[in-house]
Amino acid sequence: MNQEHLKRIEKLQRAMAAADLDAVFLYSEINRTYFTGLHTSNGLLLVERQGMPIFYTDFRYIEVANRSLQGIEVRTFKAAAEQNKEYATMAAAWKKIGYEGSLTVAQFLPLQEALSNAKWENANTIIATIRGVKSASEIEILRRSAAANDELLADLLKTFRPGMSEVEMQRIFRTKVAERGIQESFEPILCAGVNAVECHHHPDDSILQPESELLIDMGVLVDGYCSDMTRTIYYGTPTPRFKEIHDIVLEANQAVIAQVKPGMRCCDVDTIARDIIKKYGYGDYFGHSLGHSVGLEIHEMPAFGQNCTTILEPGMVLTDEPGIYISGDVGVRIEDLLVITETGCEVLSHTPHEIVIPC
Amino acid sequence: MNQEHLKRIEKLQRAMAAADLDAVFLYSEINRTYFTGLHTSNGLLLVERQGMPIFYTDFRYIEVANRSLQGIEVRTFKAAAEQNKEYATMAAAWKKIGYEGSLTVAQFLPLQEALSNAKWENANTIIATIRGVKSASEIEILRRSAAANDELLADLLKTFRPGMSEVEMQRIFRTKVAERGIQESFEPILCAGVNAVECHHHPDDSILQPESELLIDMGVLVDGYCSDMTRTIYYGTPTPRFKEIHDIVLEANQAVIAQVKPGMRCCDVDTIARDIIKKYGYGDYFGHSLGHSVGLEIHEMPAFGQNCTTILEPGMVLTDEPGIYISGDVGVRIEDLLVITETGCEVLSHTPHEIVIPC
Repeated sequence: MNQEHLKRIEKLQRAMAAADLDAVFLYSEINRTYFTGLHTSNGLLLVERQGMPIFYTDFRYIEVANRSLQGIEVRTFKAAAEQNKEYATMAAAWKKIGYEGSLTVAQFLPLQEALSNAKWENANTIIATIRGVKSASEIEILRRSAAANDELLADLLKTFRPGMSEVEMQRIFRTKVAERGIQESFEPILCAGVNAVECHHHPDDSILQPESELLIDMGVLVDGYCSDMTRTIYYGTPTPRFKEIHDIVLEANQAVIAQVKPGMRCCDVDTIARDIIKKYGYGDYFGHSLGHSVGLEIHEMPAFGQNCTTILEPGMVLTDEPGIYISGDVGVRIEDLLVITETGCEVLSHTPHEIVIPC
Repeated sequence: MNQEHLKRIEKLQRAMAAADLDAVFLYSEINRTYFTGLHTSNGLLLVERQGMPIFYTDFRYIEVANRSLQGIEVRTFKAAAEQNKEYATMAAAWKKIGYEGSLTVAQFLPLQEALSNAKWENANTIIATIRGVKSASEIEILRRSAAANDELLADLLKTFRPGMSEVEMQRIFRTKVAERGIQESFEPILCAGVNAVECHHHPDDSILQPESELLIDMGVLVDGYCSDMTRTIYYGTPTPRFKEIHDIVLEANQAVIAQVKPGMRCCDVDTIARDIIKKYGYGDYFGHSLGHSVGLEIHEMPAFGQNCTTILEPGMVLTDEPGIYISGDVGVRIEDLLVITETGCEVLSHTPHEIVIPC
């Protein structure tokens, strides 16, 4: 645990005070890692509005927890009934307790019963708001994650060729990821030809044909942080139709990069891209939001969507991924990872947007 | 959806009648896949005590759901408030509703509010009981998964050699898994030398030394089903101490294979192994249960543990994994995957138990 983790806990406590929460139960591995730097499969970070939090875990992690969580009290989980009594003793003064939306009912119901005097409230928004603004060190890791993703795609493009199936390309993707000692941040989307019109196509036996497109949406996990990028590549000589659609999507992607800056609402950024696609008459074919935040998880908040009124701040990291999908015809998505800066944005993805591979 | 899925739903409905449950909400991907054969990231299988269940999903999966779920009504999820009203209409006659323990609080609380006249009960045991007895076709897939795991370990042992770090061996493991177009069923445990005394050691920079042991606990995922196997290998000439401990653990593992059969209680199978280890004076160094069920998930119920009184039935698939871990000295675990048969068990793991690699 370092100064940054302490700052994160302070931020959480300030947000708890504003929301009138007396305590927050953090069970999820991701949130525990975010607030302490310690990565364990089992644990609870119990944060009260004031003072240092308490970290509970089982016998397997007590030693490492004591070693790495300086200043935080580490306790071993007791048997369930006894443990709930311990919470109840602490909870005498608690009126409102925050829980994570990911908490399971099997965990929650006994807690609710043991601490029945308190009201329980979903603390997801509070936590997401803190995690949404990345620190300089987090941005540096995200930069490296995006760079690893760029390098991987360049290597893949040396290997992929017409005649390969999507499943075969997925096998090559996963082998190259494993060889690098890293992991995928999500199951890669590899769409050969018209499969590109399906936003969430699963790789199947479809063969990449010469004179056709290949949509690749991929990301890796570097030091715990995700990257995410999409390119729509043409094998052969792009048809005028493909070029038309690709140009429009790229114009939308680039307009966002040119205009996005702190102080804007997320929904208005979505509108920048959407208006361009509408202007060309393809508004009905852009069926998803423009983007989402990325960090320890591949989908975080806030999002570039019509329903998200969050105001952009420096340090937020989001995808800029407009797309046009016309059934039985053509599908194009172009996605970059952006960091909001003081004056605009920095683009973390450095792979060229227009990739044509002769064949 | 085939006859087997229909039978599973009938089994669930019979168990619901016995437990007086009027409906069960199945949100988890694994349970939905188990009961319908359809694998989608989003959905709800709503099972009433009588009649065919209803499958809800979002627009992405409606087409495939309609195609593959013959006989089941497929509906599109509405907006949350409207959807909850729909449940409420159906729930007029429901007194008791079952939920999965993995259901999140964020999903549960609105449901609880919308259907406030009904009592909610954890249906995990009912579902685990059904999933615990594997069908012939499931056993056939588990057999292939275990065979793939055997083949993979044989290949790894041609590559691993003293001088490699655990992280390097993990990288090789993952590359070979990816090359085969399969996935790992859990993060492999690779313990060089004395690291073997930690049951859940994470691969680190420790180097595999000549004249030392290597504990490998690994599994793969084949057609959705997990395998799981542990071997403790010696590089060099095994010391008398290593041989002593390895022989005891193997005796415990083999005694279980020789004696286990339908009608026994799971806890009594744990005792078979535990008594042997105790007899040699190492009872205090076998700190975990003998084994767990394996199927679509790597840890299922029932388990070979002192607290599990489930009666064994043909078709149950469990691990047999005794171990002795003596801090700073030696750690040995030997794990096979067993199917309970009419008369005893079939061992799915075929890798030799004693592996010595000269160096």
